[in-house]
Amino acid sequence: MIFPPLEKGGWGDFLTSVNIVIAGFGRVGQAFARVVAEKRKYCRDRYGLDLVLRAALKSDGGILCSESLPLESVIDGTSGGLRGSVLWRPGLRFADVASAMATEPGVLVECTPSDLRTGEPGLTHMALALQNGWHVAAASKGALVVKYRDLMNVAAGQGVRLMASGAAAAALPTLDVGVGSLAGAQVLGIEGILNGTTNFILTRMEEGVTYAEALTEAQSRGIAEPDPTMDVDGWDTAAKLVIIGNAVIGAAFRLDEVAVSGIRDIATHLVPKAAEAGKALRLMGKCAKEDGTHPWKLEVGLALLDADHPLFGVRGTTKGVTFYTDTMGPVTVIGGRSDPRGTGAALLKDIIAIYAGSSRPQN
Amino acid sequence: MIFPPLEKGGWGDFLTSVNIVIAGFGRVGQAFARVVAEKRKYCRDRYGLDLVLRAALKSDGGILCSESLPLESVIDGTSGGLRGSVLWRPGLRFADVASAMATEPGVLVECTPSDLRTGEPGLTHMALALQNGWHVAAASKGALVVKYRDLMNVAAGQGVRLMASGAAAAALPTLDVGVGSLAGAQVLGIEGILNGTTNFILTRMEEGVTYAEALTEAQSRGIAEPDPTMDVDGWDTAAKLVIIGNAVIGAAFRLDEVAVSGIRDIATHLVPKAAEAGKALRLMGKCAKEDGTHPWKLEVGLALLDADHPLFGVRGTTKGVTFYTDTMGPVTVIGGRSDPRGTGAALLKDIIAIYAGSSRPQN
Repeated sequence: MIFPPLEKGGWGDFLTSVNIVIAGFGRVGQAFARVVAEKRKYCRDRYGLDLVLRAALKSDGGILCSESLPLESVIDGTSGGLRGSVLWRPGLRFADVASAMATEPGVLVECTPSDLRTGEPGLTHMALALQNGWHVAAASKGALVVKYRDLMNVAAGQGVRLMASGAAAAALPTLDVGVGSLAGAQVLGIEGILNGTTNFILTRMEEGVTYAEALTEAQSRGIAEPDPTMDVDGWDTAAKLVIIGNAVIGAAFRLDEVAVSGIRDIATHLVPKAAEAGKALRLMGKCAKEDGTHPWKLEVGLALLDADHPLFGVRGTTKGVTFYTDTMGPVTVIGGRSDPRGTGAALLKDIIAIYAGSSRPQN
Repeated sequence: MIFPPLEKGGWGDFLTSVNIVIAGFGRVGQAFARVVAEKRKYCRDRYGLDLVLRAALKSDGGILCSESLPLESVIDGTSGGLRGSVLWRPGLRFADVASAMATEPGVLVECTPSDLRTGEPGLTHMALALQNGWHVAAASKGALVVKYRDLMNVAAGQGVRLMASGAAAAALPTLDVGVGSLAGAQVLGIEGILNGTTNFILTRMEEGVTYAEALTEAQSRGIAEPDPTMDVDGWDTAAKLVIIGNAVIGAAFRLDEVAVSGIRDIATHLVPKAAEAGKALRLMGKCAKEDGTHPWKLEVGLALLDADHPLFGVRGTTKGVTFYTDTMGPVTVIGGRSDPRGTGAALLKDIIAIYAGSSRPQN
């Protein structure tokens, strides 16, 4: 650091205030709030941003502050703590917040549970936010799967940003690399291990565990949901593939265009057999053209990777994606925490990109 | 694509003109010019940028155009073709170009050969450019190793950008990921296989070839320079490590702080012996703290990687880097063409980031 830390009241005049509203205050929303609390000083010092959490919303109400909300009062304890706050207002919706903050919009951090068919409730929140001059950083996938191109057009028309890192494999920087780092190159194909739960299960099965045992282990460790359908049947991978494909290729893919199969019916012996042969059986999302004249083909399913495949070493809950390009060759990115804290950090990254004027701050 | 292609004279009014001057017209400068020629229409259509190559400079002269230079006339044939052009002006320097274009600055693409001790001739070019309101996209490492922080401060003071992807492992997006994708996270350590030549040699040695044989093979395939000192003694890796460290950590590391050793004296049998033991011997650059109280320690040397190391599978001329962070866990990026064309594509990527307002264009 070449400048002294910026503090409010001193260098504070040079800070950019960032009003943040969190919609959906479950595991991801709370993890994001915690990351903001931890990183508040760092964001002032390094990026000149003063992060101000103005509201947090659940499905049946929320909290709206006229001043800076002491984050600690919100994030201590469980979400019951939000409802227990003296500031809790039953029935408060994002529309109310947007209306109350009409002269001081900021960024909506959308963390509500996704419905991949309707995009709701995130779609209503995000559309309203963008139309009212709010930026959006999304962890919810539904709205992005259903209306990605339309929402991007609204954002462009309003001169605001819609950022989707949190919905596209979170701390694994799929969109930064695919859209930013590959700018000017043409992406010829995308392959990704995009779901940590299924990759954990397949990695455990390599070690001789059955599918049912591996799933139970994943659930007991908080990796898999009690209802694992979205993960094990491939829909989480498919949703991320659609979002990444639309962003990187500039397309308007729909979820119903993806040929999706999962890992639920896999024969137990197949996975260790692949490993013995020096290969890895993985659930992959792929977006490719068979040749120049064919349209893009999107699919999710099991793939047998050779040892020299760039994603061969991606094990456990780790995720990874490879982009094949014309001028840059293949570029692979692997890793990033696969949990709510990683998603919270990805949401913060997108907010810094919006307000620091570039996703690559000048230092 | 949702909009029809932008063409000059029609939608062309909405295009942003980008004046480009190339300093250093060897393999990298020429490869960049070729990528620009290939990608001109794509950059208009997708990013709204009209790339105009205004000048190309060699050490003893160059070409300066008042109108758009037909790229094809410059990039056909060898650099002798530049000197053979009717537009060739002996003795033309960047200072002359900057003076002639004082009212219409653009971006300097710095591709001159680097002197890692003095930073010249790139340092003079880059300082002059930034002071005169030009953006800079650099492939030359020297100036960045010698004066990174000072140059960044000049750029910030002038409101222009200094981009260094081309000097920091080129098509491997080290800076995009380290600075942009990890924004808000604290980087706790950096490890990279940053030099394609030494990695090629070590990979070949795994297969039983001697160091001398592998080096000769690399030279005959155009991978290694006739004088391979910078690569095999670790200085190329060290220079990239200093640039990446300074950008990502916000430090002011100097090359003489790096403990550098290379691969020249390696015993032939060690490499296959490591491979037989299921490990990989690789030349790595590392930037780490031993604990919170120690200052950063930078070193370049041989490292023995276990099979579960994220860079274990990085073979041949491929490069890779892993960033260890607090909130995002480890993030690894691997690949990107390791040749002049990859560097040219990285320079174009940085220009798009400068002029499209963000390194992540809104699509």
